[in-house]
Amino acid sequence: MRTRAAVALEAGKPLEIMEVNLEGPKAGEVLIEVKATGLCHTDEFTRSGADPEGLFPSILGHEGAGVVLEVGEGVTTLKPGDHVIPLYTPECRECPSCLSGKTNLCTAIRNTQGQGLMPDGTTRFSMLDGTPIYHYMGCSTFANHTVMPEIALAKVRDDAPFDKICYIGCGVTTGIGAVINTAGVEIGSTAAVFGLGGIGLNVIQGLRMAGADMIIGVDLNDDKAEMAKKFGMTHFVNPSKVENTVQEIVNLTKRGADQIGGVDYSFDATGNVKVMRDALECSHRGWGVSVIIGVAPAGAEISTRPFQLVTGRVWKGTAFGGAKGRTDVPKFVEWYMDGKIEIDSMITHKLKLEEINHGFDLMHEGKSIRAVVEF
Amino acid sequence: MRTRAAVALEAGKPLEIMEVNLEGPKAGEVLIEVKATGLCHTDEFTRSGADPEGLFPSILGHEGAGVVLEVGEGVTTLKPGDHVIPLYTPECRECPSCLSGKTNLCTAIRNTQGQGLMPDGTTRFSMLDGTPIYHYMGCSTFANHTVMPEIALAKVRDDAPFDKICYIGCGVTTGIGAVINTAGVEIGSTAAVFGLGGIGLNVIQGLRMAGADMIIGVDLNDDKAEMAKKFGMTHFVNPSKVENTVQEIVNLTKRGADQIGGVDYSFDATGNVKVMRDALECSHRGWGVSVIIGVAPAGAEISTRPFQLVTGRVWKGTAFGGAKGRTDVPKFVEWYMDGKIEIDSMITHKLKLEEINHGFDLMHEGKSIRAVVEF
Ligand SMILES: [Zn+2]
Ligand SMILES: [Zn+2]
Ligand SMILES: [Zn+2]
Ligand SMILES: [Zn+2]
Repeated sequence: MRTRAAVALEAGKPLEIMEVNLEGPKAGEVLIEVKATGLCHTDEFTRSGADPEGLFPSILGHEGAGVVLEVGEGVTTLKPGDHVIPLYTPECRECPSCLSGKTNLCTAIRNTQGQGLMPDGTTRFSMLDGTPIYHYMGCSTFANHTVMPEIALAKVRDDAPFDKICYIGCGVTTGIGAVINTAGVEIGSTAAVFGLGGIGLNVIQGLRMAGADMIIGVDLNDDKAEMAKKFGMTHFVNPSKVENTVQEIVNLTKRGADQIGGVDYSFDATGNVKVMRDALECSHRGWGVSVIIGVAPAGAEISTRPFQLVTGRVWKGTAFGGAKGRTDVPKFVEWYMDGKIEIDSMITHKLKLEEINHGFDLMHEGKSIRAVVEF
Repeated sequence: MRTRAAVALEAGKPLEIMEVNLEGPKAGEVLIEVKATGLCHTDEFTRSGADPEGLFPSILGHEGAGVVLEVGEGVTTLKPGDHVIPLYTPECRECPSCLSGKTNLCTAIRNTQGQGLMPDGTTRFSMLDGTPIYHYMGCSTFANHTVMPEIALAKVRDDAPFDKICYIGCGVTTGIGAVINTAGVEIGSTAAVFGLGGIGLNVIQGLRMAGADMIIGVDLNDDKAEMAKKFGMTHFVNPSKVENTVQEIVNLTKRGADQIGGVDYSFDATGNVKVMRDALECSHRGWGVSVIIGVAPAGAEISTRPFQLVTGRVWKGTAFGGAKGRTDVPKFVEWYMDGKIEIDSMITHKLKLEEINHGFDLMHEGKSIRAVVEF
């Protein structure tokens, strides 16, 4: 069949809207109609050429929602008409990682996915001249139709709006999951969130859901504070307006009899390695847990004195919020429909596929929290 | 009273054996007769002048065992005749850290201890001319008698030999505790231990106690392998003899169907920040936990790409093996007496107080695992 897609032909170039060929689903695969897709910083990281592992031509996009049109041989858990969210982190429930119970980083199709291929080592997309087009993060949701492995689709309830729940395919789950899965924040905790973009806001709402007492937002832009407050931020620190951000946060959190200070949990949602260090070092001696969410530039390194860890701080990271996609994503959709998770106010822009490059402009200008393309 | 001690008069100088004044215990304090004390790398770190926080003159030593001679006002949990192990990490059971249940880093007397003082801000030791002598790590076991806060003494059973259980005051607990308290190693795990000195050997025996399947020792010195095998090491890697230590460990541990490799747990017992990085990076994607035990030189920093954490590795550290001294140290003594913990073969040298500087020579020459001074 043919479908319409925004194709990344070359690193650093705008996406081009075009008709492309799409082969039907092979064994274990599913054809879906994409109804909506968010534009994420990771798409832009690859489009811009900053991603050293970027492949071209490719169809980007990994934050979608849609409907199953056709299933390949052997597919048993999905049928035409099912509503689904694509998963760039699949959940096969059979690989050593899935069976470990310790991680969401399923390895079943890791190698081919990293090479922009379906599990059989080929692509389903091609240019009209036959040139193969690479898949992206196993999803390629910047196309009106895409083919995905069954293990990389979460079945969700039918009455949830595509243009909102697509955000659960990446940003919402990454932010909230970092809090509840990776950090395991307990009620009454104190926390700091570095970077109040889309991920940061979702971390903040995750902290509110988990019952945190103090939620300190940190951003260089004062304008971000208002929205963050709506999501649950209780205190705001602008690093450009204080002498020492770590000390400021430590001072804000001197609660105990020993007046030590430091947050129980901290989250980096900036991708800046210097900020990641601050996030670690503002966490509490003895038990502070700092979680890296942001994606750093290629080659960038985090560093700190080992004393920070020897005195009880824990440094960890999260991918897709530690969520097991087929298990957790349907639950997140339920929580959205129940009003536990707020999404609507974060979808600041709706675009047509033809306007997708404008969406990246909005991202760069800091004008959007999330721009969503509807098909 | 007067007692005999090895005094560190100046950074970088040999210790001097001399008579010193010792005041009796004030309220909440206990006078003990030190029966035996180990010589630890941390003592040498301070003696040598490498420790930027070193204070002089001071009486070093923090790995002792002894008997209570006299208790100060208000002391209720100890009485003359009790056998005790001094704790450089006290356990007050009242401060926010103790009550958190999340850390062993009691803060009750942290400030004064760091300044070489008793909790009231003074020293009990002085030179015969009246010059105060600083306490060290709250212990100062390189003296035949010392005064310590009640909360910094673990009461242990009376029939345990001082010249062996003194090692539980630091090295044994640090190594075994890193495994069972900090890392929480489960039966069947794979692990790598970097540095096969005294701490490394104790990590190895901790791993054996915890039921690890594979215990990979890593050391530049082949001669260390034999002893390590006796303590439970199953595989040995000499970094000077392989192209890439991380890759070697990953290859050794490719157990699952996905052939990813990497150890479940890794431990740095070298204090070298480059080794700490290798320890992190040889741990398993998705769930590897790497624990820093070694003390790094002043100013040294650890670093890695954040990708290592985002893909599921956890970087943490441990002090005194995460052990709550008054609770856990008596248990470790029981385990030694029951034969669960091996110590005797690690006490390679017995010295008199007069020979203490020779003990540091043995340490530098790599000839001792642990030298113990008996009074
Ligand atoms: Zn994303
Ligand atoms: Zn899997
Ligand atoms: Zn020590
Ligand atoms: Zn305490």
